[in-house]
Amino acid sequence: MASLILGSASPRRKKILRKIDLLFDIVPSIVDEDYANGLKPIHMAEYWAVEKAQNVSLLHPDKTVIGADTIVVLDDTILGKPVDDNDARRMLTSLSGKSHIVYTGVALRCDANGSEESFVAATEVTFYNLDKTAINRYVASGDPMDKAGAYGIQDTSAPFVEKIAGCYNNVVGFPLSQFVQLISQESVKNKFPVDNWFASDKEIA
Amino acid sequence: MASLILGSASPRRKKILRKIDLLFDIVPSIVDEDYANGLKPIHMAEYWAVEKAQNVSLLHPDKTVIGADTIVVLDDTILGKPVDDNDARRMLTSLSGKSHIVYTGVALRCDANGSEESFVAATEVTFYNLDKTAINRYVASGDPMDKAGAYGIQDTSAPFVEKIAGCYNNVVGFPLSQFVQLISQESVKNKFPVDNWFASDKEIA
Repeated sequence: MASLILGSASPRRKKILRKIDLLFDIVPSIVDEDYANGLKPIHMAEYWAVEKAQNVSLLHPDKTVIGADTIVVLDDTILGKPVDDNDARRMLTSLSGKSHIVYTGVALRCDANGSEESFVAATEVTFYNLDKTAINRYVASGDPMDKAGAYGIQDTSAPFVEKIAGCYNNVVGFPLSQFVQLISQESVKNKFPVDNWFASDKEIA
Repeated sequence: MASLILGSASPRRKKILRKIDLLFDIVPSIVDEDYANGLKPIHMAEYWAVEKAQNVSLLHPDKTVIGADTIVVLDDTILGKPVDDNDARRMLTSLSGKSHIVYTGVALRCDANGSEESFVAATEVTFYNLDKTAINRYVASGDPMDKAGAYGIQDTSAPFVEKIAGCYNNVVGFPLSQFVQLISQESVKNKFPVDNWFASDKEIA
């Protein structure tokens, strides 16, 4: 088993992290994100990223666990995953013709030595005006159901998005470049007992 | 054969257009983009998109052809595709720690009735500082060689990008959402002899 674990079942996060030659295994966290805990939106995703990393760390205390949580925030209201088609339609209608913010919190945790690092990335996303037909067609595809804000920027809802400001992969579900910046710092690397972060390190070693 | 043709050999453009249920075939254009023709950078990509669409239209005058051209512009200098590894390293070094603009021109052309539409999309991309090791590793992957500016934001160079402002798919090579806005206008649709733009139109018809 790799010394690094991605504590997320999200196929999007896995795919993004596979873009770099990071060595990791996957153990999904078992956490019930409660966005009604009174935290401000800007703190919420990072809080749940830490909770998820801690949850998986309990089972694998000697490993370093990556936790992540993505939320969509529209006018200070948090949109998580839709509960059903009506909820998805309601969310997409509220996002139509407006800008919202996507926050992804990322946490690194190792229980054995109590090390923890976390940050949150924010990207502004602006939607075109969406007509009912487009919303209904997209909801019928089933794509909205497992996604915060009821859309996936990388899927068939791509034409909904007029522009973004910030990191694209953050909107998909994992702010890859900021994460690479973090784990490129020697001080951060040394806090966690990871033998080889990258496959290429292994080749060199 | 579909009544719509994508006049581009780019696998990225094909993949982006497959996100929507557009019905099209592919006939690559045979055009030698000359970026030393004296046009300003903001007009260059649209000019070559039109040239490419016209080139394919000559062979398929009764079809509607989509042409596209992507350039990277740094401090008013156009970066096309690198000619070799050294050129790729030179381009990536020049992009390091700075912002540049990616322009993709898109054209629609039908020779039979002389109809033409075109636009250009612009996205600002900001790179982190890149060290030599990261640049050399990326150049060694071969990924830069067929790409304007010597990088593909969707591939292993994703961690180079701190942020973007504008359309992400435009940086990959095709501004999908602006294109969908264009072909959603009845006045544009009616100018081109396309039976069914979308597979779903066909189902309805």
